[in-house]
Amino acid sequence: MRVLVIGANGKVGKHIVSKLKETGHEPVAMVRDTDQVPFFEEQGAATVLGNLENEIDQAFYNIDAVIFAAGSGPDTGADKTILIDQEGAIKAVEKAKQFGVQRFVMLSSMAADRPESAPTGIRHYLFAKHRADEHLKQAGLNYTIVRPGALTNDEGTGRVTLKEHVNNFGEISREDVAATIVRLLTVPGAEQKSYDLVSGDQAIEDIR
Amino acid sequence: MRVLVIGANGKVGKHIVSKLKETGHEPVAMVRDTDQVPFFEEQGAATVLGNLENEIDQAFYNIDAVIFAAGSGPDTGADKTILIDQEGAIKAVEKAKQFGVQRFVMLSSMAADRPESAPTGIRHYLFAKHRADEHLKQAGLNYTIVRPGALTNDEGTGRVTLKEHVNNFGEISREDVAATIVRLLTVPGAEQKSYDLVSGDQAIEDIR
Repeated sequence: MRVLVIGANGKVGKHIVSKLKETGHEPVAMVRDTDQVPFFEEQGAATVLGNLENEIDQAFYNIDAVIFAAGSGPDTGADKTILIDQEGAIKAVEKAKQFGVQRFVMLSSMAADRPESAPTGIRHYLFAKHRADEHLKQAGLNYTIVRPGALTNDEGTGRVTLKEHVNNFGEISREDVAATIVRLLTVPGAEQKSYDLVSGDQAIEDIR
Repeated sequence: MRVLVIGANGKVGKHIVSKLKETGHEPVAMVRDTDQVPFFEEQGAATVLGNLENEIDQAFYNIDAVIFAAGSGPDTGADKTILIDQEGAIKAVEKAKQFGVQRFVMLSSMAADRPESAPTGIRHYLFAKHRADEHLKQAGLNYTIVRPGALTNDEGTGRVTLKEHVNNFGEISREDVAATIVRLLTVPGAEQKSYDLVSGDQAIEDIR
């Protein structure tokens, strides 16, 4: 599939582009700046310029699936949490609908399905993610929502725990998150589903 | 009507409570702290303690209508924009549904129906208000959304411009906003409607 990766230049996004290449997909990395292009060109991945705060229509032509992996990151204010994490995601969902891209995989965050229970400092972020996830659920697309635990830069293990709900707020490597998301793209049983994701024993390649 | 005023201790909220009293309604001022109670008791208005970031169920018993006039204000971060302006409003809508309070008037903001066109510094705020307004529209309540222009502390004139859309981003006094909102509570033609509101020539008491 030709897969638009929104937030491709992020830490998880870069892994997603690599995993898409490895598994025979055709990633299209949406990046904000031209100086982010060579990184992807060097690995033979297509790029498209797009900024979630502006028009992104140009990114949606000839696309089979969208992976939303953008985030405003820890170094910006909560205004960007609204504009990127919430509204950027909602805009991407609306554009997928508009351009007839049926398949949409959302990188969410653990506890985004129950933000009111989160600690104060992270609660606004989880509400923003929650609104984006809820918007996707009601959009009429073939969606999958993935809510990973605390992200690490550890090397991927190829094994995870992927369940509708896990009780412990565990960790997981960004590489395993990316591999799981790419796997879920082509798993019919993952459509219209939301999952928590932490490290574990289940082989990603066996996810059905 | 017995009207719950959420954000009663704000500048517009205080006017709303007064106007409700003047027009024969029975306001219930939701306030966060006990030291905000005497201000309302002195004018014979009921109060209920409630914080939008916590449980607010206790405020919804025996209520006929809700006016949402809360805002996180200019002195807090955008995290509070999410938690109060957006999520507080959404929570109030959900509680109105849960407790069978059919009538809901939302104090929104001009341009909350088109946040993408707003200047950068205010855009995140308008997106938050937009999401709250959209949530209300789809909640199945008898709603009215009021989007005033720039708020002033001028004395009320009793006259406004209330239209689905006004082209200029005008001003309006908080007192006239409050009087208009209270008027709209009992105007059947205002149900399922959204309005821009600026100063003007239309007598508030003639709004039908």
